[in-house]
Amino acid sequence: MTEAAPRQAALGEEELRTLDAHWRAANYLAAGQIYLMANPLLTEPLRPEHIKPRLLGHWGTSPGLNLVYTHLNRVIKARDLDALCVWGPGHGGPAVLAGSWLEGSYSETYPDVGRDAAGMELLFRQFSFPGGVPSHVAPQTPGSIHEGGELGYSLAHAYGAAFDNPDLLVACVIGDGEAETGPLAASWHSDKFLDPVHDGAVLPVLHLNGYKIANPTVLSRLPEGELDALLRGYGHEPLYVTGEDPAEVHRALAAALDDALDRIAQMRSSAREDGITERVHWPMIVLRTPKGWTGPAEVDGVPVEGTWRAHQVPLPGVRENPAHLRQLEQWLRSYRPEELFGPDGRPRADVLACVPEGARRLGSNPHANGGLLLRDLPLPPLDDFAVAVDKPGTALHEPTRILGGLLEQVMEDTRERRDFRLVGPDETASNRLQAVFDASGKAWQAEMLPVDEHLDRHGRVVEILSEHLCQGWLEGYLLTGRHGLFSCYEAFVHIVDSMVNQHIKWLKTSRQLTWRAPIASLNYLLTSHVWRQDHNGFSHQDPGFVDHVLNKSPEVVRVYLPPDANTLLSVAEHVLRSRDYVNVVVAGKQPCFDWLTMDQARAHCARGAGIWEWAGTENGAEPDVVLACAGDVPTQEVLAAAQLLRRHLPDLAVRVVNVVDMTRLLPHEEHPHGMTDFEYDGLFTTDKPVIFAYHGYPWLIHRLAYRRAGHPNLHVRGYKESGTTTTPFDMVVRNDLDRYRLVMDVIDRVPGLAVRAAAVRQAMADVRSRHHDWIREHGTDLPEVAEWTWGG
Amino acid sequence: MTEAAPRQAALGEEELRTLDAHWRAANYLAAGQIYLMANPLLTEPLRPEHIKPRLLGHWGTSPGLNLVYTHLNRVIKARDLDALCVWGPGHGGPAVLAGSWLEGSYSETYPDVGRDAAGMELLFRQFSFPGGVPSHVAPQTPGSIHEGGELGYSLAHAYGAAFDNPDLLVACVIGDGEAETGPLAASWHSDKFLDPVHDGAVLPVLHLNGYKIANPTVLSRLPEGELDALLRGYGHEPLYVTGEDPAEVHRALAAALDDALDRIAQMRSSAREDGITERVHWPMIVLRTPKGWTGPAEVDGVPVEGTWRAHQVPLPGVRENPAHLRQLEQWLRSYRPEELFGPDGRPRADVLACVPEGARRLGSNPHANGGLLLRDLPLPPLDDFAVAVDKPGTALHEPTRILGGLLEQVMEDTRERRDFRLVGPDETASNRLQAVFDASGKAWQAEMLPVDEHLDRHGRVVEILSEHLCQGWLEGYLLTGRHGLFSCYEAFVHIVDSMVNQHIKWLKTSRQLTWRAPIASLNYLLTSHVWRQDHNGFSHQDPGFVDHVLNKSPEVVRVYLPPDANTLLSVAEHVLRSRDYVNVVVAGKQPCFDWLTMDQARAHCARGAGIWEWAGTENGAEPDVVLACAGDVPTQEVLAAAQLLRRHLPDLAVRVVNVVDMTRLLPHEEHPHGMTDFEYDGLFTTDKPVIFAYHGYPWLIHRLAYRRAGHPNLHVRGYKESGTTTTPFDMVVRNDLDRYRLVMDVIDRVPGLAVRAAAVRQAMADVRSRHHDWIREHGTDLPEVAEWTWGG
Repeated sequence: MTEAAPRQAALGEEELRTLDAHWRAANYLAAGQIYLMANPLLTEPLRPEHIKPRLLGHWGTSPGLNLVYTHLNRVIKARDLDALCVWGPGHGGPAVLAGSWLEGSYSETYPDVGRDAAGMELLFRQFSFPGGVPSHVAPQTPGSIHEGGELGYSLAHAYGAAFDNPDLLVACVIGDGEAETGPLAASWHSDKFLDPVHDGAVLPVLHLNGYKIANPTVLSRLPEGELDALLRGYGHEPLYVTGEDPAEVHRALAAALDDALDRIAQMRSSAREDGITERVHWPMIVLRTPKGWTGPAEVDGVPVEGTWRAHQVPLPGVRENPAHLRQLEQWLRSYRPEELFGPDGRPRADVLACVPEGARRLGSNPHANGGLLLRDLPLPPLDDFAVAVDKPGTALHEPTRILGGLLEQVMEDTRERRDFRLVGPDETASNRLQAVFDASGKAWQAEMLPVDEHLDRHGRVVEILSEHLCQGWLEGYLLTGRHGLFSCYEAFVHIVDSMVNQHIKWLKTSRQLTWRAPIASLNYLLTSHVWRQDHNGFSHQDPGFVDHVLNKSPEVVRVYLPPDANTLLSVAEHVLRSRDYVNVVVAGKQPCFDWLTMDQARAHCARGAGIWEWAGTENGAEPDVVLACAGDVPTQEVLAAAQLLRRHLPDLAVRVVNVVDMTRLLPHEEHPHGMTDFEYDGLFTTDKPVIFAYHGYPWLIHRLAYRRAGHPNLHVRGYKESGTTTTPFDMVVRNDLDRYRLVMDVIDRVPGLAVRAAAVRQAMADVRSRHHDWIREHGTDLPEVAEWTWGG
Repeated sequence: MTEAAPRQAALGEEELRTLDAHWRAANYLAAGQIYLMANPLLTEPLRPEHIKPRLLGHWGTSPGLNLVYTHLNRVIKARDLDALCVWGPGHGGPAVLAGSWLEGSYSETYPDVGRDAAGMELLFRQFSFPGGVPSHVAPQTPGSIHEGGELGYSLAHAYGAAFDNPDLLVACVIGDGEAETGPLAASWHSDKFLDPVHDGAVLPVLHLNGYKIANPTVLSRLPEGELDALLRGYGHEPLYVTGEDPAEVHRALAAALDDALDRIAQMRSSAREDGITERVHWPMIVLRTPKGWTGPAEVDGVPVEGTWRAHQVPLPGVRENPAHLRQLEQWLRSYRPEELFGPDGRPRADVLACVPEGARRLGSNPHANGGLLLRDLPLPPLDDFAVAVDKPGTALHEPTRILGGLLEQVMEDTRERRDFRLVGPDETASNRLQAVFDASGKAWQAEMLPVDEHLDRHGRVVEILSEHLCQGWLEGYLLTGRHGLFSCYEAFVHIVDSMVNQHIKWLKTSRQLTWRAPIASLNYLLTSHVWRQDHNGFSHQDPGFVDHVLNKSPEVVRVYLPPDANTLLSVAEHVLRSRDYVNVVVAGKQPCFDWLTMDQARAHCARGAGIWEWAGTENGAEPDVVLACAGDVPTQEVLAAAQLLRRHLPDLAVRVVNVVDMTRLLPHEEHPHGMTDFEYDGLFTTDKPVIFAYHGYPWLIHRLAYRRAGHPNLHVRGYKESGTTTTPFDMVVRNDLDRYRLVMDVIDRVPGLAVRAAAVRQAMADVRSRHHDWIREHGTDLPEVAEWTWGG
């Protein structure tokens, strides 16, 4: 380990003194936020009424975060760095708030919380107070792109922020608790995707304070050599900073940071100026300091500092227990606040000596408010990529392949700007988007072999077999003001359910903050979907992500199910232009009938749902039945059912409705896209049977439409977990979504038809029986299904 | 790396020959499954009609899996090992099916697929054929506890299987694709939790075949030293087997396995006989062989073997392309099937020389059909733990703390059997279950310090800050015939959404297989729930897991919301006794009013939903309004609302209904627990307003109840993503679930009440206004709420 030992660079005594003053001030402010609602400068002895009624917040991690903030200030100022920090232990909200208040960013963002005594009192009082600010790092926190509540995503966010930001340094504090999570464990390998030429640098700071809520952490209890091997195995050159004596740790951390930044500068210049393409082994810092450092060493005779007991509020009974109150006062006074703040509450010059200026401050860097830097994505005319449709339902195209052409052009048109990325878990080609490789290869910094294709040290398609990393990278990229698309197998996007929850919560909160500029939407292309995972079988069949996101804040969430190639183009254009949404687009990669011309597709997508008059048989009057559909496979089955009805029951007035934008079904009051009852009833009627063929779980349609007048007549077919390895058509038969079943549903539900159309119904049932026999014999679908066309 | 280089132990030429015969036979069978539907022994030249119409399956990984199967056979037989294998690259279904067919396990499990020519034809034909078997390792696969579709969980499953199985060896093949996922990356640290005394051994086999679907893999492209450092950093002693020459690889793998098993035996004996407690650095194997090894080297002039192009079906056009057909025949004949199988199709003696007997065979080991080994969990009488309830709503208990007493007893009563584990992400104490520590400490093999509490080298409480590992370990533990409970913060259980999907699919499929014995249910205790994450704020507030699981197969899924401590005990007893379910129990850890005595709780839970007559004011006649509730906080608010109505509108006949088992609300036809309409209408009426206060997203209740006659009168309150850091009561106010709002809802919905009760309604609105002012001033809840009791 000696080779990586940091140089003990000279930190002048004066600089050490002022750095320590900044750190003490930040520690004071962090503790003050947890405890005080009055008397912020301790101008009088502490009394119970100065103490908050509910003591909340996480002290344990705060001194470490403060230390990093202090020392990042120093190097940013000394080197004029453009730097962000991602605070993985974001439960330590008090620390990051303290840092941004000290540097002035906080008061500039929230003028009512001034950098003075009154502002300090408000800073303290508002923390974890009703109507105040959250206890974790959150959208409300200036300088943050990372919510600190759910652990695991800090390092992936940091890499996402660094991609295509060649001059940026992204420091990332990783707690040793967070380091146990799967997403974080996988994130270490992100270094194989970071281009030293076009990307910024990520500087991980693994903070080993030794404990989680109630346990030691795994990494902190490894022998030193084992930890070192692990970090080198991740590709890093680790620099160690260990200690309990503040002055020693200040010196060691300053030296380590200087060392790391010198190395980074050297690596950048090797790659950029000398053209060296060998993989870079980036430095990182291992910071081992006590949990709850400088807080109470013992409470009630039990060790607290340096143990898990310092995790949250180390002195819990302050309001009721005079001894605890005295101990708190001693603790707070141990920082010597009178040396740190003037009588007016303003931080003294010593405290601010390390603080950089203006947009260099961590709480004011525009990359952390990415919407400020966002430029509109150049989108080419859709007609250049649209498929020609002479007659609906005659020709087939693979919708995602058509989309690939559009994405190729976007990739091409952002070649210089480098503000668009496509991420996916090893599935870009499998999802038939491979045209993009003509405009950008796949990011790759590890070894390349002659047999490889499309690998590119400077690529902007990013593939790794980890949905977590795809999601985390893209979030970091979007939050710093760029654009992107995540293409994923539909079933496995559930892997990131909890991550999208957090991103939606971030967006919802951000939209309420006037100072946060809108960012590009997080766009999912879910393909290889439930109906065409017939070859991979049951494990690959799950359409529930739509349900998952529709539980979330309606102002943020959009769901689109384009039924063919041209509608997919139109939806893609729309979502790539949009801001501050999570857009879920479900579309197939298998050959799919073209139904609409580009102009029709645009008009249909603009409405979000509409009648396909050419497909139905209503003739001016009210229809007898509505056949509704959402999704490519259900649309095909509904169209085929409509054709069967036209042939077998020509008198029946059938209306075909297609829904592209699922949120149109919601009441107008519940979602901005929701239809009014007038609109809804106009499409679906109030009293006619509606047979709705839906892509996913059928009850979702009921959940969206239960308030509508026509709801009692709504009958939904969809996926009901009846899956296996079989043929495409057998999948719809198994789930009662097939054309024959839909015709039977119509006959069963239109009054009077049961008797009149009994023979037709029997004919449909017969085909289904034949299907069952045929498929077991031949292993393929019935020829009349396999060769079916609408318009032919 | 020299220190860990495997001994080149002598593998006799005869043994080498027979091992190779087994491997070639397995490779032949794997390729045969992908391609052939007739002519299985190639007794005639291959013709297009012998080829399946749809070519499915993953060849690329199969030769490597076959190699491991062959060599595991050898060591199992030589050492009489009790061994399982978890096949991480489970897309290679053909390989594992081949292995179990060769050893006879397959034909014993499925007698129609005999170990003869006819059976081989069926084995081939059924693979990925409609009505046949899935293309991945699945519940249908004898010897498997692991579905191979969604990647990431193999190593966690292996550890779960090894826990408390001291004599078991669990080999685990990890693909280099899977190794990129977060859950797998975190799983490497499971070795810090494996007790060499009471647990079995896990032998990871990292299979570096170099490619995913379309890309090289990260780990395969690391420099050797970096990979070695990584694996040593994970705590392992890696043994390397690399090659392309079958004989050399056979020799090296045999030597490495012998070396690894010798080391494991030595480590066990050190720990068990010599009492050595130092952490064990378990061996592992790195197997580097070509992807699609022994398959077509080139196809149409492009390299295939050893590249990603071998991932799935290396020769795609066999039926149409005579050259491909010839190449396939050459490939199949290269295994010399006539040497491997007799004319009757039976494997020859050489092929079977390495195969162990009976239950030692990988496809017949009872641990892989864990229900065979399952014993009923000893459950103590609930009355020993129940809280006394003289009068409802006067005393408070923390329900999970009461449950902790029961769990302590279960832990105690399984001290010798060691077949019960409690897993959680560092939250057992936070979730107030710490009583269990009196019966078992927390598993921990890393360094211990004097300050630590409850760490125990032999503990059966397992805590790591990774929901993925908790879930994966518990699944592996249950699937091998043991019992357990996963306690988790409600919001963060979404982290394992996709894992529970796969487990539910496993259970659904297993229940249809008569040879799979039922296993203990996967039980979740979701606590620290949405309504009491007021201190952690918005990121910790998400009740959607219930929605997620209720999308899945109703025969497998159960959801319980016990409203107090005694009902939680009753539910816990029920779920711990149950089999083959996923049970989701949502219960609070904060002080909660006791409503029911133990006897009442038992009766209420047995019904799953019922009228709380003592809480309402109906008097024999039909009620004017139904106040329904599900969940602890909604129950409290409904009871408080009922009390307000009793006081302010004494003439109003109010019925209070509490729902414990959410699936009771579903139609009888859709879920085995669903109420008949008669039952439902009896509780909820068909025509009276129902104000339903629900724990989670309100639309879930509509989705469950939309078919009921009374549905148009159903008005649901629940969580609507309005969260922040605030007080408990403010949380319910923000989401319109509070008692005052519920009273207003009643007044708004009972015909005629709007006018008559206008003053009451205004009074309720006034309290809500006062609440808003009070909370911003004091930071605590209104005294009349904070001090409220029902029975006082």
